[in-house]
Amino acid sequence: MNVLDGLIQNLSRMPGIGAKSASRMAYFLLEADAAYMRILGEQILTLQEKIHPCRICGNYTEDEVCAVCTDPRRDRSVICVVEHPQDVANIETTNEFHGLFHVLGGAISPLDGIGPAELNIASLVHRVKAENIREVIIATNPTVEGDTTALYLVKLFGENTLTITRLASGLPVGGDLEYADRLTLARSLRGRIPFSL
Amino acid sequence: MNVLDGLIQNLSRMPGIGAKSASRMAYFLLEADAAYMRILGEQILTLQEKIHPCRICGNYTEDEVCAVCTDPRRDRSVICVVEHPQDVANIETTNEFHGLFHVLGGAISPLDGIGPAELNIASLVHRVKAENIREVIIATNPTVEGDTTALYLVKLFGENTLTITRLASGLPVGGDLEYADRLTLARSLRGRIPFSL
Repeated sequence: MNVLDGLIQNLSRMPGIGAKSASRMAYFLLEADAAYMRILGEQILTLQEKIHPCRICGNYTEDEVCAVCTDPRRDRSVICVVEHPQDVANIETTNEFHGLFHVLGGAISPLDGIGPAELNIASLVHRVKAENIREVIIATNPTVEGDTTALYLVKLFGENTLTITRLASGLPVGGDLEYADRLTLARSLRGRIPFSL
Repeated sequence: MNVLDGLIQNLSRMPGIGAKSASRMAYFLLEADAAYMRILGEQILTLQEKIHPCRICGNYTEDEVCAVCTDPRRDRSVICVVEHPQDVANIETTNEFHGLFHVLGGAISPLDGIGPAELNIASLVHRVKAENIREVIIATNPTVEGDTTALYLVKLFGENTLTITRLASGLPVGGDLEYADRLTLARSLRGRIPFSL
């Protein structure tokens, strides 16, 4: 197999990239400028060596401690608990949260053999105890696994004076009741909020 | 900017890849196995050095002459003329064509400053004269530029005894008359074929 076919095959292993997209990307790369290709190739070769989890929160970083954990302007009394590092990036784009993060590295899923011991829960408990944490926001996904993990954490911290909150689940902004599934609609009803002008 | 953000930015420059897809790809790469990453990185770094146009037809190849041009089983009396190398790959997937190819490198587009001189037309004329070509299939895109190029080629070869054909334009298989645009429907009428059982 020549390098072009090999590249198409490797690109199509990425999530969301089918054979057609991989082929379009490869032909684009064939005609892209040489400097871009050199940088892209080197970024891929050095990515895993340079990027690793933050020692404190588990978010991806090039340094020992990530930019959020070292930022003096962040509210150090709130921790937002997420499943994956990309969730940190997504929440950061909202500009709504100014506290710290904690990345679990997944969610409890007995079918996949992932129990609490496989997740970064011990370090979360340690942080909540050692630092002066006022609120823990549980931002796991609204799935069976994410909900199970949230419930597990609530029980774990239950006896505390800590405030524990969960991300609201409901209709997406710009969505339509007609297309909402039954469970989402039920949750948005159960979690309804007082109308304020 | 760290290497992760840089990689996301570079991936999102590829066709059909938005910020969300680029981010999903980058996080996949962060956790992909090291051997895959090394191969992918090296494929990108060596791609442009290893792959270049075939000396005869202009299709991409690692060798001086491409696999189609050197294949003794191909029908050497038919040339299919396409705009881009990826068109060769697409036509090959149909298993319907067993002749040779000729890649023009684009289509005539006066607005973009591309005239016949900018395309590999001289080498096509040379091939048709020098080799024993029976038919030229013009497989440029059914666009204004592709049609202009087809017309130019037909006039160029006009006085010849050569058969010149053009790919059929019409309804896509599995399509629906309701969703076909006016021009496509008109072409499928004009190009209608006798019903044979």
